[in-house]
Formats: sequence, C-alpha cells, structure tokens
Amino acid sequence: MSLDALDTPCLLLDRARMERNLARLRARLDGAGVRLRPHLKTAKCVEVARRMMDAPSGPATVSTLHEAEAFAAAGVTDLLYAVGIAPQKLGRVAALLRRGIRLTVLVDELEQARAVAAASADVPIPTLIEIDTDDHRSGVRPDDPRLLRIGEALHAGGAELCGVLTHAGGSYDCRGEAALAAIAERERAGAVHAAGRLRAAGLPAPVVSVGSTPTAYFARDWSGVTEVRAGVYVFFDLVMAGLGVCSVGDVAIGVLATVIGHQRDKRQIVVDAGWMALSADRGTARQPVDQGHGLVCDVHGVPYPDLVVARANQEHGLLEVRAGSNAPLPELPVGARVRILPNHACATAAQHPGYVVVEDGQVVTRWPRLAPGW
Amino acid sequence: MSLDALDTPCLLLDRARMERNLARLRARLDGAGVRLRPHLKTAKCVEVARRMMDAPSGPATVSTLHEAEAFAAAGVTDLLYAVGIAPQKLGRVAALLRRGIRLTVLVDELEQARAVAAASADVPIPTLIEIDTDDHRSGVRPDDPRLLRIGEALHAGGAELCGVLTHAGGSYDCRGEAALAAIAERERAGAVHAAGRLRAAGLPAPVVSVGSTPTAYFARDWSGVTEVRAGVYVFFDLVMAGLGVCSVGDVAIGVLATVIGHQRDKRQIVVDAGWMALSADRGTARQPVDQGHGLVCDVHGVPYPDLVVARANQEHGLLEVRAGSNAPLPELPVGARVRILPNHACATAAQHPGYVVVEDGQVVTRWPRLAPGW
Repeated sequence: MSLDALDTPCLLLDRARMERNLARLRARLDGAGVRLRPHLKTAKCVEVARRMMDAPSGPATVSTLHEAEAFAAAGVTDLLYAVGIAPQKLGRVAALLRRGIRLTVLVDELEQARAVAAASADVPIPTLIEIDTDDHRSGVRPDDPRLLRIGEALHAGGAELCGVLTHAGGSYDCRGEAALAAIAERERAGAVHAAGRLRAAGLPAPVVSVGSTPTAYFARDWSGVTEVRAGVYVFFDLVMAGLGVCSVGDVAIGVLATVIGHQRDKRQIVVDAGWMALSADRGTARQPVDQGHGLVCDVHGVPYPDLVVARANQEHGLLEVRAGSNAPLPELPVGARVRILPNHACATAAQHPGYVVVEDGQVVTRWPRLAPGW
Repeated sequence: MSLDALDTPCLLLDRARMERNLARLRARLDGAGVRLRPHLKTAKCVEVARRMMDAPSGPATVSTLHEAEAFAAAGVTDLLYAVGIAPQKLGRVAALLRRGIRLTVLVDELEQARAVAAASADVPIPTLIEIDTDDHRSGVRPDDPRLLRIGEALHAGGAELCGVLTHAGGSYDCRGEAALAAIAERERAGAVHAAGRLRAAGLPAPVVSVGSTPTAYFARDWSGVTEVRAGVYVFFDLVMAGLGVCSVGDVAIGVLATVIGHQRDKRQIVVDAGWMALSADRGTARQPVDQGHGLVCDVHGVPYPDLVVARANQEHGLLEVRAGSNAPLPELPVGARVRILPNHACATAAQHPGYVVVEDGQVVTRWPRLAPGW
C-alpha cells in the first residue's frame, strides 16, 4: 500500500530508522555490560515493546498501571512502575503480583513506604526508593537522612526493598557534551551513593536503576549501576536532536498531513494537522533552534529547508519558513502531502490510535497503541 | 459512588456547571433569534452532544471526518465539517451524503472548489466558502476577487453552494470587552459582506455562519447572520476565564489527581497528573494571569489560592504557589486528592477516554468520548 492511500493526519513509523535507533543503544549498553530496562511509555505499543525488550517477558518500565496491566496481558512479567505510588493504587499492584507479574513500585516518602509495607501482607511488594540526583522533580537526595528511615519502613514492614532509582530529567535542559556527561555522572554517583548508604545500614539494595535517553548516551562510567532506563531513544525527536543525542534523520515517527490551503501573502501553507495530531508540546522552544510545532519534511522524511509548523490550532497547522531564513517556501498545492517530525515523540504519539509502519515509501503494517487511560 | 473510589488521573465533568453553561448560551442566542450550530470537537461525546444540540439530528459542527462518521452513526444528520477539505477526503464525504447525512464541507481555494464540484456528480456536495475576517488562519478575505471565482466554480460545477463561514479565532487574543465586541462585529460584517457579494453575482448564499465562544458572547449585532458556531462554552476553561467570557467557577471539567510526593524545601507538591492527563497546552501563558498547566482546586472544584501546576512531565505534575503570591501551600499529604482546571478544555479532554460525570460530590455516570483518530 502506498502512502498516497492513507487518510490524514496519521502517525507514520519509519521502521528502518527505529531499527537503527534500537541497535544503537543496544550496542552501546552491551559494550558497557549494563542491562537495559526500556521505558514503554513513549510507544505504548506491544509490537514496539517487543523490539525494545531483551525478551517477551521483559524487563521493562512503565509510567501508569494501565500500561502495566496491558503489557502484563501481553506477556511481560518484569515491570517497573516508575512514578511514585499513590496508596490508592496498591490494590491494583497487589492484583498483578498475585498473578505472578513482578511489578516494582517507587516511593520517596515515609507515608508511602508505610502504605506499601501495609499492603505487603500477602505478597511482599518489590519497591525502589526514588533518589533525586538533579534537583529536577521527585525523590530524596542521596544524603537525606529520610532515605534510611524509608528503607527501614519498607524492609522491616514486610515489603521487598530492592534498592534505588533515579532519573536525571534535568538532562533535557543541558547544553553540550560536557554538561550531559556531567549530569550522567551525577545521576550514577548519586544513585550508587544512596544504595551504598542503604547497604551500610544493613538494608538490601541489589538494584541501582538510572536513566534517561540523554544520560544513557553521554554516560562515561557505569560503575555500580545495575540497569539503565530509556524510552524516547526508540523514536527520537526534535528535542533529542537539539540536544545532540541524535540527528534529525534519526527521528522515526512523523505525522503525515495534507495541504488544505494557503495564505500566499503571508507565505503560509495550511495543513490538516494541528495540535490534536502533533500535540501542544513546544519542547524545542527553549532550545537554540526552535522547531515550532514540528519540522516539515517531504513524505519520505527529508526536511524542507527551515520549514516549520509555525502555529497549530486543533486541526490546522500553519507552515512557514523559519524567521530569518532565506529558504524558499516549497510549492505544495492543495492535496500535497508532508511528514512532520515531532518536538516530543511521547506527546505526539499519544495523540494517535496507532502507528502506520512504513518502509521504502510503502505501508508495511499497522501497530495499535494501547487504549487511552490510566 | 464517591470520588474517593476513582482511579486517578481521570477527567471529571461537573454536570451542574455544564448545564448552567449550556443554558446561558442558549438564552443569549434565543434572545437574539439566531440559531446555534454547536461545535462537537470540544467534548467529542454523544451524551454531551445531545445536550448541546437543538435536536438529536443536529445541527452540529465537527472538526474531523471521524467525528462526522461517529455522530452520524449516533443519529446526527446535519453536520458541518469546519476545516478546509482535502480532495482525498471527498470519498468519505460522498459516502456520508449517499447515506442521507447532510454533511457540509468548507473550501477557500479554487482547486478545492473544482475538486468538490468534480466529486458532486452523484450527490451535490453542500459547500461553504471560508472567509478570513481576522487575518488569523485560513479563508479568503471578504473583498478578495477569488471569492466569486470559487463560488462560480462550485455553483457552475454542480456542487451545492450554501454560502459563507468565518471563525474569528483571533478573538482568543483579544483583551477587554471593547476589543471582543469589535472582533465579533468584524466577524459578522465580513461574513455578511462576502455573502452579499456572492448574491450580487447571482450565486446562492443562504447560509452566513459565524462564531467562536468569545464572539458568541460579545457580539452586539447579528444582522445577516443565520447561524452561530461555538464549542468550548459547554465546558469553559481557564483561557476563557482569562478573557472574561466566564468565571473560574464555570469551568465544568477538571482532572482529578492524587498527591504522590513533596519537595518541601522547594514548596512543591507532586501529583499523578502530568501533561498526559492535562495536555501540554499553555494557552494562559500569553494572558495576564498565567495559570501554569492548570489551576488547582479541592475535589469539589474550589480553587486553592494561587496554587497552580507549575510544571508537568508525562505523568507528574508539580504544584506550586504562584510566584509573588503570599498564599500558603495547602497541607496535602500523600494520597490527598485535588481537581485541576484546564487551560484549554478541548486539549485536556482529548487526553482522556471519557468523562466521569459528578454532581453534589458523587459520581452519577460515565460518558465515553469517541475513539481517538481521524
């Protein structure tokens, strides 16, 4: 089937680019001797997950219990829910554990630890303590006295204390290789230090889980780390390209859109992909190169020079040549097709029911995403 | 069922607020003697649509053919697809027309008009010409010579030329009642003028369709207008409250979220609703009061003073008291629930599989949204 036959907007997945992205991280981590626990929240797709994981059983990371339940139903038995647990969710966690799914949860407060311990009466709940290594979001700092109190509450209370987890989300705001290498080392060192404190206190900490796509690529030392988490590396996006983690030519997903009009006096082209198809994510706005709501390519994924989605309404995108550029506005009549690369793959993919998988300019298959919800 | 029993995040729909919003626009338009063609793209929900429309058969407005097909299946027979038509979509349009669904399409280019005429051989396709009355997005200007050529191509080519449509999306960027009244008058006058030009040229133009929620509320004259379109008025949102179209207490949808942590030294509360539940829309960023990623309320929808979602990751929201405010950070322990009002109702609702309808603090029913897709 040809791309011409597709209804637009729809989400294209360029299989060759994805396979290259998968192979690249695998080669890097195999070389370092560290295990990958891929994050499935970017793709939320069983077919993509199977290509990211070592085995159909995992290991893998998820961002919601809905993902955990859906991937468990698809045969994944080793899952990490990498968002701090709400006590109200422990019933669903326990139900998965009773079915033989090893689902690890995350805590960073004493009240959470006590709730997890209290829910561990039947099956001890595998639990990691979240460490804040970059002052970015959540977690206890590596030196925080609360770390040991949380560990003790879990261990003595009957939960299965597995160790520590950290996510250097601050890496998304780093500029340059040196800064990325530095935050990767901070992520590693902080997590290893926290695990060491637990062990010194006689508490178990077999797992030291770190990761983000930028730090996975810029880390120079993995000493003490037992697993790396990364998700967006499977597709990449313009934010990652802006960070230097990949090139624009590595971005494996893009929104196929159709030209529906022109405002010729304003040098604008109107397409049928707005924020509903692209997401409202403007992650490149704070990068040196602002890609608007997406970078516009031909249907094969080759960018038009400096052509971006300058504005997006619900179902309209307005294409313009970037301000300050001398690039020509391409001739794209009504009915012409473009492929728009996303700022943020996780956000753009979340707007679509599934992936139209393309290879050599042809549609080869379709892969559904999980149904929306939590 | 109590709100305490809900899994989070989920989307609450406050029925009393919605009913009040529906009654308010209906009273205003009934008083003016102008017909409402509600836009169903905000809610994308059959149950909500039935409460917005005059009758189960419509009329109504949609933003995608997927909506048109879904609402047609639910009994709506008078639909307007208010996004410029791509020639490739005319097959699906013709299929609906053959089933007896009156689906009107929109054009603003001669090539589109010719494609619509060419596809009208079996059933004449009802068509409106889009007029650009606010230099905002798409359409031909009221005085553009192309208007008559497009009209002629439709009419002589065998399509059913119905008249003109305009949408003053620029009203979202207006400040103050006078500016909103002025853009509403510009919307009306431009559409009426364009319809008059068609009629003077001997072309049919029975329909003069205008609208946006702000202009529907601030217009002072409807002379020559045959129908008004509006969508977000059913739920309202923080952008509309910032414009003065409604108050914060009118916002009928909100995301129920659970506290999952604290960064006490940074006076931050972490909840389990990030951009996946809230959307990445930052529509209030360019308004006088920036509401972050949403305004935080208690579960009943009463705002905490100056508490906003300062940052959102995929499944994490970080609550902070607005910079410069002396309001206290409320005591919200792990497990506490909040309701977060959205910047942009269309975008936030689109992140959810459906609505949990609440009244007097109790869950009364659930209404699904249409499946995602185009």
